[in-house]
Amino acid sequence: MITITSDFGLRDPYVAELKGVILTINKGANIIDVTHNVEKFNIRMGAFMMASAAPYFPEGTIHLAVVDPGVGTERRGILVQTQQGYFVGPDNGILLIAAQNQEITHAYELTNPKFMLPKVSSTFHGRDTFAPAAAYLDMGVKPFEFGPDIIDLVAPDFTFVKQRNGSLIGEVLHADSFGNIITNINQKEIVQAKFIRVKLEKISLNLALVKTYSSAKSQEAIALIGSHGFLEIALNLANAAEKFNVKAGDLVEVTADWI
Amino acid sequence: MITITSDFGLRDPYVAELKGVILTINKGANIIDVTHNVEKFNIRMGAFMMASAAPYFPEGTIHLAVVDPGVGTERRGILVQTQQGYFVGPDNGILLIAAQNQEITHAYELTNPKFMLPKVSSTFHGRDTFAPAAAYLDMGVKPFEFGPDIIDLVAPDFTFVKQRNGSLIGEVLHADSFGNIITNINQKEIVQAKFIRVKLEKISLNLALVKTYSSAKSQEAIALIGSHGFLEIALNLANAAEKFNVKAGDLVEVTADWI
Amino acid sequence: MITITSDFGLRDPYVAELKGVILTINKGANIIDVTHNVEKFNIRMGAFMMASAAPYFPEGTIHLAVVDPGVGTERRGILVQTQQGYFVGPDNGILLIAAQNQEITHAYELTNPKFMLPKVSSTFHGRDTFAPAAAYLDMGVKPFEFGPDIIDLVAPDFTFVKQRNGSLIGEVLHADSFGNIITNINQKEIVQAKFIRVKLEKISLNLALVKTYSSAKSQEAIALIGSHGFLEIALNLANAAEKFNVKAGDLVEVTADWI
Repeated sequence: MITITSDFGLRDPYVAELKGVILTINKGANIIDVTHNVEKFNIRMGAFMMASAAPYFPEGTIHLAVVDPGVGTERRGILVQTQQGYFVGPDNGILLIAAQNQEITHAYELTNPKFMLPKVSSTFHGRDTFAPAAAYLDMGVKPFEFGPDIIDLVAPDFTFVKQRNGSLIGEVLHADSFGNIITNINQKEIVQAKFIRVKLEKISLNLALVKTYSSAKSQEAIALIGSHGFLEIALNLANAAEKFNVKAGDLVEVTADWI
Repeated sequence: MITITSDFGLRDPYVAELKGVILTINKGANIIDVTHNVEKFNIRMGAFMMASAAPYFPEGTIHLAVVDPGVGTERRGILVQTQQGYFVGPDNGILLIAAQNQEITHAYELTNPKFMLPKVSSTFHGRDTFAPAAAYLDMGVKPFEFGPDIIDLVAPDFTFVKQRNGSLIGEVLHADSFGNIITNINQKEIVQAKFIRVKLEKISLNLALVKTYSSAKSQEAIALIGSHGFLEIALNLANAAEKFNVKAGDLVEVTADWI
Repeated sequence: MITITSDFGLRDPYVAELKGVILTINKGANIIDVTHNVEKFNIRMGAFMMASAAPYFPEGTIHLAVVDPGVGTERRGILVQTQQGYFVGPDNGILLIAAQNQEITHAYELTNPKFMLPKVSSTFHGRDTFAPAAAYLDMGVKPFEFGPDIIDLVAPDFTFVKQRNGSLIGEVLHADSFGNIITNINQKEIVQAKFIRVKLEKISLNLALVKTYSSAKSQEAIALIGSHGFLEIALNLANAAEKFNVKAGDLVEVTADWI
């Protein structure tokens, strides 16, 4: 099974070209879209999408990601093997969050031309090298056949949660299409709170930490632990990210000490 | 075969999480998207989408719908069995139009934890209970194994066509992406007319009832019986819903008596 | 294997209806979306999408296209057989670019009701005649069984590259979602240049012809030969089509003679 995450959008033929390449090599491949609406060139957002979806796929799944602003430069194409499956894409950080969650066992550079299209363009490695790699891997080609072992993978540009004066300082991972503001905070002291104070870029909120969106009155702001285990700020039946003018990467400061 | 209808959109990883869950349980599942662009929380629109698509799928198809503003509350998860197939989702009316069209034979509440994810979140039952139910059902688990029989299903908020002073009063079911205004009117007296008078919220129109969009001159308004058997108001090669400022739920009054 | 290209969008149930019809006839069909976001009624754009994706699919693939403003009129439904596969859709030019690239061997009109839905609507031949034709063809029905041989296919409204005073006059085929301006120019004299002068509708540019988007500084304009072999004008990490206000169909004049 092969999943695909990209910033290709759904208007152009690029996603289909990837799938055609995979299916030409590997007629029986089962291909599932994660999303193709990652913001153009936004590696962080692609990494978040992939890391959210990957845990729900069966063992052995091959996750292909193509958000690749450096295509055609020296940046490497890589294959990362984990305890649970495989990740294929550019070595720009997009694969690492998802892969680290599954414990990385090996990583290889994709250099073997045997597992690329005969003619590799300089602008579309997703189609010409990553898709063939995923297709061959899915057919049973061994990871070490794709190229040399590597260890120095490019890390993604994520910040970790820090403590400061009894507060947790994290960041917004993603504002989803419902407007839910998903943070990177999953610390115990927050998860067990009943009320929290949240400082966003432009507003401070005192919020009840509830179980479901509909615990609140319509349009009311709440906090909850979302379905991926992270603290979310939400409005019931309305768009919190729009109302509070929040976007991925914004800082979030959370305090639970006044419970 | 499993279809999915939702309001998740195509940017977030939620649709992929559902598919990953299904495929982890049931490796051979064939999953088809109906649409994920139902307006957020719009149960009526989801019900219409599902009811439009369901008749074209093979007998035994499992139709999964997740438009679920009440997730985590007391609203039940249900499985509805019909003469033709199965419907799985929240008990909020979204399944019923499509299911009633196929003659409902039984309905069950989804309560058996054996057919849910080990850890059920309070915010994403689509992934944690409905997707597993669809996957197990597709593998041959019997409907009655999912939970107790129920009979009092929540009805969708649809109005039926009424007659008044020789006119038919119906409503707009959907304005599609071509701008075709699809009504809920499929009465014989209209279908057999040659000309009709249509009163929308803001305009009255005298229209020829034609066979095809291109029976009209470019930009000209027409009425026709659309591909689902319902009266539509359309412009040839242009967007009628935008021009006449019409949206789903609007009243429509139609008269054919002056033919 | 069956691909689908359409202008149905991803909000309405139309794509799912096509797939349901195909899978009801041919349970094992493998269906891949090329795109459903062709601009409404834009045959040229659909033809370009299909022609871009088709070369990457395996031999024998059936490519179905539904951009069909003339549905229900005298325009024919056709099946075009090539050296590589099959094309099914309306006879309005949408199939021809892709089919000609694969060398057409035969064409047939779709007239045999045996391979249509029992009830053919006058507004949705994609679902009622083209999808069944693709499904039956994929099951092994012979092309000549679908209807009579035809030879006078409707040509698409594309212009060819012309030479004038040492310049090449072409047109913009597509502005993709990255903003890359894809032209129809793939002539040798351009492909081998190092610098070119490009005249668009509203601006003239002197551009280096480079290998990759990231050969340029951020936001800088460049020319390159894109992954389909055509001359593209692009900005590194930014949207050239928006900046230069260019759209499909616009004229492009290119000179390389001052190298």
